[in-house]
Amino acid sequence: MTPDEFRADGHALIDWIATYLEGVEQFRVQPDIEPGALRAALPVEPPTTPEPFAAVFADFESTILPAITHWQHPGFFAFFPSNSSYPSILGELLIAGLGVNGMSWVTSPAATELETHLLDWMAELLDLPDAFRSTSERGGGVIQATASEATLTSILAARWRATGGAVNHEGAAAAVPLVAYATAQAHSSIEKGLRIAGIGSEHVRWIETDEAFAMRPEALLAAIEADRAAGLTPFWVCASTGTTSSTAFDPVRAIGEIARANGLWLHVDGAMSGIAALAPEFRWMNDGMELADSYCTNPHKWMGVNFDCDLFWTADRVALLGALSILPEYLRSKAAETGSAIDYRDWGIPLGRRFRALKLWFVLRCTGVAAIQEMLRSHVAMAQELASWVADDDRFEIVAPHPMSLVCLRLKDSDAANDRLIERANATGTVLFTRTVLGGRVALRFSIGARLTERRHVEAGWRLLHDLASS
Amino acid sequence: MTPDEFRADGHALIDWIATYLEGVEQFRVQPDIEPGALRAALPVEPPTTPEPFAAVFADFESTILPAITHWQHPGFFAFFPSNSSYPSILGELLIAGLGVNGMSWVTSPAATELETHLLDWMAELLDLPDAFRSTSERGGGVIQATASEATLTSILAARWRATGGAVNHEGAAAAVPLVAYATAQAHSSIEKGLRIAGIGSEHVRWIETDEAFAMRPEALLAAIEADRAAGLTPFWVCASTGTTSSTAFDPVRAIGEIARANGLWLHVDGAMSGIAALAPEFRWMNDGMELADSYCTNPHKWMGVNFDCDLFWTADRVALLGALSILPEYLRSKAAETGSAIDYRDWGIPLGRRFRALKLWFVLRCTGVAAIQEMLRSHVAMAQELASWVADDDRFEIVAPHPMSLVCLRLKDSDAANDRLIERANATGTVLFTRTVLGGRVALRFSIGARLTERRHVEAGWRLLHDLASS
Repeated sequence: MTPDEFRADGHALIDWIATYLEGVEQFRVQPDIEPGALRAALPVEPPTTPEPFAAVFADFESTILPAITHWQHPGFFAFFPSNSSYPSILGELLIAGLGVNGMSWVTSPAATELETHLLDWMAELLDLPDAFRSTSERGGGVIQATASEATLTSILAARWRATGGAVNHEGAAAAVPLVAYATAQAHSSIEKGLRIAGIGSEHVRWIETDEAFAMRPEALLAAIEADRAAGLTPFWVCASTGTTSSTAFDPVRAIGEIARANGLWLHVDGAMSGIAALAPEFRWMNDGMELADSYCTNPHKWMGVNFDCDLFWTADRVALLGALSILPEYLRSKAAETGSAIDYRDWGIPLGRRFRALKLWFVLRCTGVAAIQEMLRSHVAMAQELASWVADDDRFEIVAPHPMSLVCLRLKDSDAANDRLIERANATGTVLFTRTVLGGRVALRFSIGARLTERRHVEAGWRLLHDLASS
Repeated sequence: MTPDEFRADGHALIDWIATYLEGVEQFRVQPDIEPGALRAALPVEPPTTPEPFAAVFADFESTILPAITHWQHPGFFAFFPSNSSYPSILGELLIAGLGVNGMSWVTSPAATELETHLLDWMAELLDLPDAFRSTSERGGGVIQATASEATLTSILAARWRATGGAVNHEGAAAAVPLVAYATAQAHSSIEKGLRIAGIGSEHVRWIETDEAFAMRPEALLAAIEADRAAGLTPFWVCASTGTTSSTAFDPVRAIGEIARANGLWLHVDGAMSGIAALAPEFRWMNDGMELADSYCTNPHKWMGVNFDCDLFWTADRVALLGALSILPEYLRSKAAETGSAIDYRDWGIPLGRRFRALKLWFVLRCTGVAAIQEMLRSHVAMAQELASWVADDDRFEIVAPHPMSLVCLRLKDSDAANDRLIERANATGTVLFTRTVLGGRVALRFSIGARLTERRHVEAGWRLLHDLASS
């Protein structure tokens, strides 16, 4: 592809993306296909001769596009939002065009410094504790790909601190018998991260939740005390501010006080809902955050920054670097050795890193915080109105608190009837819902958060459920 | 940003990227700045009002761009290549535009199936063993972000297999005392991955290398036998096909035979050089690969696919899924439960996943394998010619074999003199070299691999070193 072909093909692709997003509503949210259907339509043998972009793109449109689940569709109410926006798409384009690797300061100073600066800006905008700022004594922030990696990173830092660094040398087998705490409502990445770090499920305590699916602090304290009495070493607890299943909010302050008193690392997982703190009226969720050792939230869920962009802060970068820093000869540099620069490769799992700060910068500057606040407020307002409609229909019940933009509801009927309702609604192609299990019973998750979702889409989604329940 | 603004700004950005890449040679490869200089130029307070893209981009050009290390510069001879290409940039743009999350089949079937298909295509094109194909009994491939994550994934699968899955329940502390093996020349991500998995450095054996910096299989065998005699459990060995430091090639077949006979998981790390096997004359590096349990190589290094795109294959997906699969209620689906579809979230660390297969597909189809082979061959040929020039200069010596596109050389002088040579060369801004230590002595790594690097750039780089040595 010559530079001029890139210009022409690139212009066409930009136009296609704008047209796609403007018209995404015309697609089925989820394709009606069976596993294997796309592969059957692709040539078995790899291509041998180059083709013009237009020919490849024609195949994309005829073969790939019909097999896509459209996450930007206004009727996408499944899983969690992963909303994108035009400035962010241009950011990702520029990141790819520059093709720099920000693994350490010296490999591209701008990639590191803009990232540090933006994490401080975001800490300011979310009103996070000073201990997370890069200007604090031991804190700082970094962009991770996903909350899964942020969680794992926090576990590794906590493991290092709890073992006095011995884990790096003697391994988990020789270190103290560590125990971790979360609720069963916490994200699956918690269990996965603990497993990766060699903390077996026998050493993970799933703490009892209250009727709002939030952690009971007194149950946490009892579990910690029982483990300590048994000769084990409690080391890490995760509080979720907005669980994936139902947006339950664990009481961060109460958990943090217990964590401090007992020497545990407190990680707060605000992956889904934390971005809402851009609007002052939602900052209640961060009460007690000054007791946290680490925190993450995802602009790639609810801030219009396309995946991947998870923000991770810690108040103890010494433990983080202790756990993850390794400096081979071929990566040494003056800047690294004097400690005058941050090398973000020591702040997470991967070595190589994209210049992701650029897309966050574009969104903050081109979209502006006020417009993001407006989007957050409108999604929350739509969810509250939806909840009022559900409450007015005797056949349905709401099964969890819904302070943000997710409403968990169910037919007052069997689990099978609820599964059938979800299946029939999704089969229309106009919406996509997913399920969860709360209090032992199947619930439909009505998750609002696509950038293009308007009141009329929520209304149509509810109307559909209403009508299906009647038929 | 309205759709029409996106069209106009997007066209301008596409044009800018083409112009940037066509003219990247005009920039200093590495900026001449001190840590903190960029941050000092950025506003302390976050922006409050939205601005037009053109204004933000003007700031990018005046403030950010001068602080970038230009990895696509033809004089970039540092670290390792991370080359990009026009079709790949368009692929990344489309990925961002679609904004789908390919964490499981049902969340976007095309993202999963195109990925599986491409991994099979790449296995075919690289002539990898059948056991890595998705159509084999227990094998398959996946795109990971980085080789660091691929390595960690292989360690976790091996750990699961070696403990009979007990590690998931009892943790590393209660599992058998595992020991891992690699050479000190292996990538830093090996030690990092082992540390993350709770295998302390006391349980990692750095196996002796020969004069070519390749693992001595007899030393590996001796170490395994000594550990076994001491009651430890050897479980994982990494063979590098092209080390970062000097492109040393460990003897995969001999290591594989020892691994098989002793029940170890063999991971082959071809992150840097493995892509060269697209050209038949370089396939010698894969001799013995049928004895490997997992393998990775990086299209984002040397195939024109912009970062991130690491290909990871395993011949034992049962162990992989055993180590990493967790299925919460909100991720259940029919496709997942019947096993008729692949859920790639179980094949790596993160849950969320970009639709990275698209950019690999664009590159394979628009660039074509023949053109990629040509680029690989030209880089290798340039390195060989460079080596002949170095050999003809009495003041220099070549310190490691150079079968691929990296030449490690040094002045026959002190380490300090070599460090000074690198520093003075880099200070010109026309080239960027990095250092390593081989055989206890500092060497300059002359790594050729940028897409835009031509013979004249290598010649100019050598001329510069030659002249600096004379002055």
